[in-house]
Formats: sequence, structure tokens, C-alpha cells
Amino acid sequence: MQFADRLNNVETSAIRELFKLLGKPGIISFAGGFPDPAMFDVEGLKEASANALTEEPGPALQYGATEGYQPLRDQLSTYMATKGATVAANELIVTTGSQQALDLLGKTMISPGDKVIVEGPTFLATIQCFRLYGAELISAPIDAHGVKTDELEKLIAEHKPKFVYLIPTFGNPSGAMLSLERRKKVLELAVKYNTLIVEDDPYGDLYFHAAPPPSILSLSKDVPGSRDLIAYCGSLSKVLSPGLRVGWMIAQPELLAKATMCKQFSDAHTSTFAQATASQYLKLGRLPAQLAIVRKVYAERAAAMAEALRRELGDAIEFTEPEGGLFFWARLTGAGGKVKDAGEFAKRAIEQGVAFVPGAPFYAADADVATLRLSFATADVGKILEGVGRLGKAI
Amino acid sequence: MQFADRLNNVETSAIRELFKLLGKPGIISFAGGFPDPAMFDVEGLKEASANALTEEPGPALQYGATEGYQPLRDQLSTYMATKGATVAANELIVTTGSQQALDLLGKTMISPGDKVIVEGPTFLATIQCFRLYGAELISAPIDAHGVKTDELEKLIAEHKPKFVYLIPTFGNPSGAMLSLERRKKVLELAVKYNTLIVEDDPYGDLYFHAAPPPSILSLSKDVPGSRDLIAYCGSLSKVLSPGLRVGWMIAQPELLAKATMCKQFSDAHTSTFAQATASQYLKLGRLPAQLAIVRKVYAERAAAMAEALRRELGDAIEFTEPEGGLFFWARLTGAGGKVKDAGEFAKRAIEQGVAFVPGAPFYAADADVATLRLSFATADVGKILEGVGRLGKAI
Repeated sequence: MQFADRLNNVETSAIRELFKLLGKPGIISFAGGFPDPAMFDVEGLKEASANALTEEPGPALQYGATEGYQPLRDQLSTYMATKGATVAANELIVTTGSQQALDLLGKTMISPGDKVIVEGPTFLATIQCFRLYGAELISAPIDAHGVKTDELEKLIAEHKPKFVYLIPTFGNPSGAMLSLERRKKVLELAVKYNTLIVEDDPYGDLYFHAAPPPSILSLSKDVPGSRDLIAYCGSLSKVLSPGLRVGWMIAQPELLAKATMCKQFSDAHTSTFAQATASQYLKLGRLPAQLAIVRKVYAERAAAMAEALRRELGDAIEFTEPEGGLFFWARLTGAGGKVKDAGEFAKRAIEQGVAFVPGAPFYAADADVATLRLSFATADVGKILEGVGRLGKAI
Repeated sequence: MQFADRLNNVETSAIRELFKLLGKPGIISFAGGFPDPAMFDVEGLKEASANALTEEPGPALQYGATEGYQPLRDQLSTYMATKGATVAANELIVTTGSQQALDLLGKTMISPGDKVIVEGPTFLATIQCFRLYGAELISAPIDAHGVKTDELEKLIAEHKPKFVYLIPTFGNPSGAMLSLERRKKVLELAVKYNTLIVEDDPYGDLYFHAAPPPSILSLSKDVPGSRDLIAYCGSLSKVLSPGLRVGWMIAQPELLAKATMCKQFSDAHTSTFAQATASQYLKLGRLPAQLAIVRKVYAERAAAMAEALRRELGDAIEFTEPEGGLFFWARLTGAGGKVKDAGEFAKRAIEQGVAFVPGAPFYAADADVATLRLSFATADVGKILEGVGRLGKAI
């Protein structure tokens, strides 16, 4: 069978092979990108879905508008306001998870050969998603404060990309938080080079102590001409439930209209049943209290992992302790002749009964093979201590 | 803003303009393609979703496998068996409505410039979906017994299409049912020309009296070498609820694996919450009784519409009475100097307070402007009689 040429642009994931090993009994996994299901507000979602099917069974079960279910768009507008962004309900569309927002951006914007700048490292499924539309990805270097805006400017000037894709707040895999200063610089670059910036923000609400700087979208009100150059992707996956597959995209009207047309022929609309449930849930007002619990639990786990990594791996590993999100991004130093290749380390770790993801696949180019990603979200503190202990043996 | 070149391949729908008029108070609509929400088994779905959140809250709310939620795949395998097709659970993937199955077929199979044969007329969103991937669509003529297989063979031989897309059973918009003889012929053509056949089957269960012939997929067991050349798209939208967005695709392993990879970067997976609810619903065993009600109601409405059309419009219109599905496909004859252009007729009808969809947009090429589609699904018998009466005045 002759498949479409675009499939030649993507490889099956190296990570996938590793994930097959996760089924081994007794493995402690730091490999996933999942939230902890124990954090799901099952009672709240039961009430919300029952309300949806009692109060609005017709709309909740019928075909709906491609743009999204209006009561949910209204709720999401309110939710964005609590995060400091003024967004009218018709300035956003609901997507089937924020993965679909990425897909729609690719479908709407990328012609084969177009350049797109991403962080190095960035979300693996973004790399593959954009490459399926024929994008040539340019990798912009990051540090603990997110993308290096000086380097980013050089790359924008040189490559004139279709857009720049950033996960500025507790990014996957980097866990990094883009500083306020750099956020403003990104907005200035958008205007200076008339370049679209895609802000992917699934983790912004998962801060441990102080709230992060406002989103790039929120800050756009201070930089004249920048608002129309920001596309923002939000998601309920990490704060409520990934299984709902409810995300949203905010963009200027023309881009939003084109993305809506693309969505019409992608899946007609996002499940109205899931949308009505999400809408009812937000209406119940349970999210803030739920988020407070989630933040506290993840903060404890992150602190435990940081301390254990320092104790068990010492100078063999370096990392910046994240201030939110789900991930540690770390780098093997090779100190004392210890293993420096994260792929090799991953194999040894599996033998010791602990799993993580090597960092190389997260780079669109120039992979740093010494890097790795550790998720602290799904293991409790006891498991984290045990798992990091095994990492210590593996190294 | 510079959008992707692929957007130049599609037009915004002519139908969309018409739909804006549907908001007019008092309009009777035969325009939609929606099932009647009064047919939704709300109580059954309430029970099913409550069961999902009680018995399996973790999996129902967490990320899931791109291929689909395993209990649902098992249920769909059983469901296909009741329809005469032997399909193992791992021979199907769950899609976000069957619209996404079409999108994944486009993404997986179509390179720009590839040819795809569709029926003339065919489902509007299929035309746009495939064109977004750069397909050149070839239109195969149909009659009341579905696609004319002699013509289809000539087109396959001439154009060597990437695949042939058919809605063989109560198709949208044609309402036509492909005869058993022609189904077998299609399978022979698949083998003879080594051509993939896509069978889209959202309406097959909505028969009024006798069951239709087995699906092309089911019949493939009688034609050696044909099974791997059939991709089948199923959907719960017309038999249970469109709002769940639960469809599925059956195909040979390599195609299914490639489509799964494409889906991974399209929306990660279909809502596990919707999938678990659908799975629980099918497990409840309520679908057969529910379908019996739906068939009876739609059969009454179709009969009422047929009788009223003959009475009110006489020889100004010709049509074949459908044996299932949601649609009448009709053609203005111009007899007695009456209106022959369905676009013009639609405008006059709106003035009289009744809406339908002109047929021209359903053709990928060589549109017959005298055709129109009338849905009898959402209006009750009284409304149908009143609406067709208004059509009589409009003509």
C-alpha cells in the first residue's frame, strides 16, 4: 500500500520502545507525562455529567457547533479572566485536547517546507505533529529561564518562520519557566518581525508556591500590536482530566476562522457530552479547591525528588528544581567517570526497576544525549524515594 | 497572515449561508443531517456514564491508548459481529466520530495531486476533508441502487485512484442503497485493480423494514484477497448520540498502524470519558430496543414525506423512496414550467417557511443543480405534512 508522502517526515518514537518495558512488574515509573489519577475530582465530575444529562440532554448529546459548546466557551472565558487574560467567548474555540489545537495550527498554517521555531527541547508530539504537515523545525536553545530570547531573535531574523512555538510555563520536557523579562521580549519580537507566537500553556496552573508571571497572552495588552500575533493553547487535561479531551485555542479572528474550518473536517466538533460535563464542572466552582490540593501534592513530590536526586546521584546529575508542572529536566555530567549517555542510563535504570525518558527525542535538532526527563507526578513520595534510590544504583 | 496553501483547495460552504436563515422563527427544517434528539436514550446514557465514573473512574478520566479504550474496542467487535462482520478488537481503532476516520484516511493516504473516487453526489464534509489533503476528486455516477459499478470500473482503470470512497447504505445525501450484486462487483474491482475501498457506514442500522444487504466489509469474506483492501468507518452518531463523537475504523494492520500514528498527533486519543460511557452503554444491552424505536419513527416519517411529496409536488419532483437512513434525494423535473433550479427553489421555500439543502454542493464535479436533499429525521409527521405543503406553495 502506498501511503502519503508526509508520513516520511516522521519516525516512530524511540520512546515507544521504552514504554513497552514499563509493563514489567515492580517498575517505578518517572517516564509518563500523565497527571496522577488520584488527583481527579471524580465526585465533582459525576455531579457535572449528571447535571449535563439532566439539565441539557439534547445539546449534550447532539451535534454541536464546530467552535465549541457555548456554555463552555463562556466558562473558559471566565477561567481565562481569573488567569489575567481578557478573552471574549467568541475569541476562543474548543479543541479535542490541546493536541488538536497544535494539529489545527499545523493544518491551518504550515505548507511543506515552511519553517517553525520550537524550543530545544520541546514537546515530542509537537515535533511530530508539525513535521506531518511538512514543517522544517528550527530549534531555539533554552536555559533554566526558558528560551534564550537573544538567540531566538537571531533565528527569527534568519529563518522568517511561519510561527514560533513555546511552552513558556513549566514546559514539557524542560520544566522551565520563562522569565517575565523574556516574556516581554518575546512580545516585542512578535511585533518587530510580525511573527506569530504560539503559547502552549497546559501546565501554568500547576505552580507550587508563587504564581508564575502572567501568560504571554495576558502580557500582550502592554505591547501594542502584539495581541493579534499570539495564539494561545489551553487545556483541562492537567488540571481536571485528560480523558475529557477538552482544550481550547485563542487567536485573532481570521486565524480562528480558518482553524475552525479545518476542525470541521477533522472531527466536526469536540464531544458535546465532554464539553457539557466540563462546563457544568467549572460552573460548580470546585476547580480552585481542587487545584490547591493538586499543587500541594505535586510540590511535595517535586521537593522529595529534588532532595533524593541530590543525595543519591550527587554531582553525576545537574538540574534546576522546577517551580511547577510535572517534570524535572536533568543532565548527566559524567562526573567521576559515571555514565553520561541518558539512553544507556535508561537501560540500566530499567534493570534496576525504575524508568524515565531520555531527553534526545525531545530535540528537533542537535540533541543533547546527556539529558533526561523525570516526572514526579504519578509516584507518591515513598515511591519517589525508592525510585531515585534505584537510579543511584543504576548510575 | 499567510495561511497554508492547502486552504486554497476548499471553499467555505454555500450551504452555510442557507443555514444562517434557519434561525428564522417558524421555519420547518428538512435541511439538517442530524438525528432527532427525542430519539436519544438519555436514561440509558445517564446510567452508562454513572457506571463509567463509578466502576472505572481512573481509566475513564486518564489519558488512554491512541487505538481506543480496550473495553469499547471489545464491545465494537461484538457489535460488528451482530452486523455479520468478523472483526477482532485489535482490527479496529476508535475515532473522534467517523469524521475523524475520514480525516485520518486523508492524512495517511493522500499526497497532494492524488486521485480519489467518490460518489456523485457524496457527503459534503468528505469532499472538503480530502481536498484539504490535496486530493483530486473524481466523481462516479450513481442511481437508486448506488454507484454504477460499470462506470466505476472505467474510472478506476483510467485514474488509478489512491482509494474509492463509498457510502453504500442509505448514503448521505443520496439515501441510495447499493445492491448486493453491485457490492460484490465493488469487491471484485478492489481485487482486480488492487484498489483500496473505503466503506463509510453511519446509516446502515437505520433500515425501515428489511435489513439491507451485508456491508461490503462483511461480504469480503466471499471474495478472496479483498478483505485487506476494505477500510470501514462506523459511527455511534446516528444510532446512539453524535455528541459522544465515537466512531471507529477497521482496516488492514499496516494502514491501521499508520492511521493510529496520525491520530496520535491529531488528538492523542478520543475522549476516554465518552468511550467508557459508550462502552458501558453497549454493555447495558439497550441498543437493540432503542434502534427498534428509532427505525419505526423514521420509517413513519419517511413514508409521510413520500406521500406528501407526491401529493403536493406531483410531477414537478422525482425521487426514490429510501429504505432507511435520514434522507430523500430528489430532483426537480421542471414539468409544467415549474422551477428546475434547486438553489432558486430553496430561496422560495425559505420565504414560505421551509428549508432544505440544494444538491449541487454535494457533487465533487458536474453538479446537477436540479437536485436537492430533504431530511425527514427531525420533524414529526405533522411538521412534515405542513412543511411539504409549504414546498408545494413554493413550487
